[in-house]
Amino acid sequence: MDQNRFRDHPTLGFFDWVLRGVGQVVFQNNPISGLIILGALFYNSLIYGSICILGAVVGTVTAIALKADKGLIRDGLFGFNGALVALALVAFTSADFRSGAVPSIYMIVYIVFAAALTSMVFSTIATLLGPHKVAALTMPFVLVGWLFLFAVLKFDSIEAGPLAKPVSPDQYAYDVAYALPTWYMGIGNAIGQIFFQDNWISGYLIVLGIAVNSRISAGMALVGASVAALVAVIFGAPEGAIRDGLFGYNAALTAIALGGFFLVLTVRSFVYTLFGIVVTTWLWASVAIFLAPIGMPVLTSTFVIVTWFMLIGQYGFKALIPVPPAEATTPEDNRRRYLETLSR
Amino acid sequence: MDQNRFRDHPTLGFFDWVLRGVGQVVFQNNPISGLIILGALFYNSLIYGSICILGAVVGTVTAIALKADKGLIRDGLFGFNGALVALALVAFTSADFRSGAVPSIYMIVYIVFAAALTSMVFSTIATLLGPHKVAALTMPFVLVGWLFLFAVLKFDSIEAGPLAKPVSPDQYAYDVAYALPTWYMGIGNAIGQIFFQDNWISGYLIVLGIAVNSRISAGMALVGASVAALVAVIFGAPEGAIRDGLFGYNAALTAIALGGFFLVLTVRSFVYTLFGIVVTTWLWASVAIFLAPIGMPVLTSTFVIVTWFMLIGQYGFKALIPVPPAEATTPEDNRRRYLETLSR
Amino acid sequence: MDQNRFRDHPTLGFFDWVLRGVGQVVFQNNPISGLIILGALFYNSLIYGSICILGAVVGTVTAIALKADKGLIRDGLFGFNGALVALALVAFTSADFRSGAVPSIYMIVYIVFAAALTSMVFSTIATLLGPHKVAALTMPFVLVGWLFLFAVLKFDSIEAGPLAKPVSPDQYAYDVAYALPTWYMGIGNAIGQIFFQDNWISGYLIVLGIAVNSRISAGMALVGASVAALVAVIFGAPEGAIRDGLFGYNAALTAIALGGFFLVLTVRSFVYTLFGIVVTTWLWASVAIFLAPIGMPVLTSTFVIVTWFMLIGQYGFKALIPVPPAEATTPEDNRRRYLETLSR
Repeated sequence: MDQNRFRDHPTLGFFDWVLRGVGQVVFQNNPISGLIILGALFYNSLIYGSICILGAVVGTVTAIALKADKGLIRDGLFGFNGALVALALVAFTSADFRSGAVPSIYMIVYIVFAAALTSMVFSTIATLLGPHKVAALTMPFVLVGWLFLFAVLKFDSIEAGPLAKPVSPDQYAYDVAYALPTWYMGIGNAIGQIFFQDNWISGYLIVLGIAVNSRISAGMALVGASVAALVAVIFGAPEGAIRDGLFGYNAALTAIALGGFFLVLTVRSFVYTLFGIVVTTWLWASVAIFLAPIGMPVLTSTFVIVTWFMLIGQYGFKALIPVPPAEATTPEDNRRRYLETLSR
Repeated sequence: MDQNRFRDHPTLGFFDWVLRGVGQVVFQNNPISGLIILGALFYNSLIYGSICILGAVVGTVTAIALKADKGLIRDGLFGFNGALVALALVAFTSADFRSGAVPSIYMIVYIVFAAALTSMVFSTIATLLGPHKVAALTMPFVLVGWLFLFAVLKFDSIEAGPLAKPVSPDQYAYDVAYALPTWYMGIGNAIGQIFFQDNWISGYLIVLGIAVNSRISAGMALVGASVAALVAVIFGAPEGAIRDGLFGYNAALTAIALGGFFLVLTVRSFVYTLFGIVVTTWLWASVAIFLAPIGMPVLTSTFVIVTWFMLIGQYGFKALIPVPPAEATTPEDNRRRYLETLSR
Repeated sequence: MDQNRFRDHPTLGFFDWVLRGVGQVVFQNNPISGLIILGALFYNSLIYGSICILGAVVGTVTAIALKADKGLIRDGLFGFNGALVALALVAFTSADFRSGAVPSIYMIVYIVFAAALTSMVFSTIATLLGPHKVAALTMPFVLVGWLFLFAVLKFDSIEAGPLAKPVSPDQYAYDVAYALPTWYMGIGNAIGQIFFQDNWISGYLIVLGIAVNSRISAGMALVGASVAALVAVIFGAPEGAIRDGLFGYNAALTAIALGGFFLVLTVRSFVYTLFGIVVTTWLWASVAIFLAPIGMPVLTSTFVIVTWFMLIGQYGFKALIPVPPAEATTPEDNRRRYLETLSR
């Protein structure tokens, strides 16, 4: 099936863009990836699946209303931050964060404004970083997420209990032994946590969604989550935090971004990616501990910070081959195109 | 009376620039606006009126001594951050923050250095944002204000009690009913709070000062403060915080900035401005709650953040008509010039 | 002796670059300066001396492996942030911070990754600031230092007690009288603290190392530390914090940077530098108080912030003569070259 069949369709196009928006959370500009990932969310919770769609729709509609660049809209780039911020706002205000709670009408208004704002912040960061050929990544989600999460807990009209979801390794017991589930559940959960899903099966379904578009990216997601778990085990992190995938979700994103997507995959860039994974794992813990006193979650801030450092910085290094955001498609394509230019 | 009569006068020019500096806090490049606003401050407190002049003078003199751009100096752009930082340092170190206390000699030295530093920070931010055609807004004041407020509480030579002025909605009772004064005092106080004046009559006098130069800007200030109060009421914020104008002073500034000043006023940009006002209101609460544990006030940080997001971001949108800072005069002028280019 | 004798030597060159890296912490691109400074560290503690070499080596090797610009590598610019971050990680995790503790194997792995990351962050900040002709200064160290310090305290495998080193004036008694040692020990310690050495004799040895390359820079370091002590005394800061050099190490760096290195030394730029020293001193206290609740040290953040404000900002002022980072050598050379262009 042609993945670009509906991209430019006059009426069905919109659904295509929204699905791509869901896929773009993990760098997959492919509506089928988006569909499978949505399925993974619905498998865990009807609420999260619906909220994810709401967020992606609002982000995309805002961009259309403001007459943003059509190419960016059709690639789903105005949808993924909206989807994430909507999921985050529900996840962190629900008493049972595993399945989420149906938001109140006040909360829905709040989510709609937050998702709409991500489209403006995406455009702002894209503008500021444009000259440096680096993507905005999920920074719009992180910034809007933090700003909106703080206030939500203080408005009387929005019923929100104390943050039910653990946000820092400190909140887990330090004396539990590592076991087999630490690994297979930890790795699956890490991928799931990218979308706030505490469900390791959903996590592996998301990997499947990625694999439909790029096997390298799917492999990198698993490498990222696995190496993160390994590093956390070696450095003696609490078992519960590893099993819940908390150490790995930022590392998995760093792995996808550096592992072939924004850098042509070579032996050197793979080592560079491994370095990024290890650093992201440690620094997730760092930011978590920093934010814990004010009760804020890390979101994907560590992934963004480390990936920005390693992508902007590498323009000063000749050992790596960058792929500018506008040309990045899949690791397979990026590498093929690079080899073609070499052979000319 | 010609508002530009003294702008280039060899000796009286300096007074003109300082008065414009006061007006520039609310985007009014007009000495008469500055004069009326100063009057509004003196009406509330002789101390605040004098301190405001001191800050604007120091910021302007620093720019002259460092040979900054004459056009910027004459437009009062080196005065408004100095005025604000001076007011903030007095407001947050006075036992009675309503009228302010006469600062000690140590404190005056401290204020002079802080106001002088705002001129350097203004130049820094203007340089960094120059390529993106967005103004520094009151960010120099926010940064210098935060940095200097922290230290002031710890030097033995500067007598400063604990922060007397409430800085977060948390500090107000949640069970007080909304009443008529919530509205008319809240809206007036919101405008007053821009200059740290807890006096709603001063607030309306400041609106008058704005109206002398631009009726649209004056209207926007009132729209911003009113919508902020409305949003706060709908979302169940504490009455005291609304009545003190805390929810509205950032929103009023966002309203003036987006409502005709940096974007040509159209139906679309007015809706965009309303969106900005609502977001600014919520995020004021957010930043207030974030900063409360360390006892720091929000200052005008929320206004700057939201306005930057919405102005830098809109360069990626075709639905709005931006006015670069160097060409922004008044909403009326901006719109007239735009309509002229259309009709050509 | 020719200071550039080994810079381009095929095998000995590497040692030259690492020594320059040590010297670059205090802006001295001179291997002999680096050697004397290393001596000052070894005089205080074998451990700190060795760790400093480790950090500078890792930073430099990373840059070589990633094929960074050879000119920058040979000037030691990839070594100084690595050296500082290695020293910081040991200083803040040792029970006895004066002499430091031998790091565990886990800790060494951690330090190596941190030092390697500084080279990427250096390249990132240099890229972002490039158009504004301002150097990255020690910001890579500050950012990586903060990020890695947070996490280190929470990994089971890394034994780290509570932060033994005081990080804020709050941790000192306020009622100790100032005495002669407040001054001569305070000034020496301030220079030592740049390298985390609580040893005033090491501090004066470091001044000697600077003087070998530039007497003006050495003088500025002393002026910075002295004025900082004076300001702290006038504003009633705790004696212990002054004697430990805490108020002065950021100010000394600001003094070297603004005092002839990035601005041609004139009467005007000297006054500008004095302003920067005073502000840096106050703001050190400010940032220290801000960070104290989360137990983080200021590192050299205040120096970087103030110097960036004053250097980026001054491109908007005609009263000062900037020296772009690529041309900045020593205050003496900068001034000589400027006078030559004048006389042409």
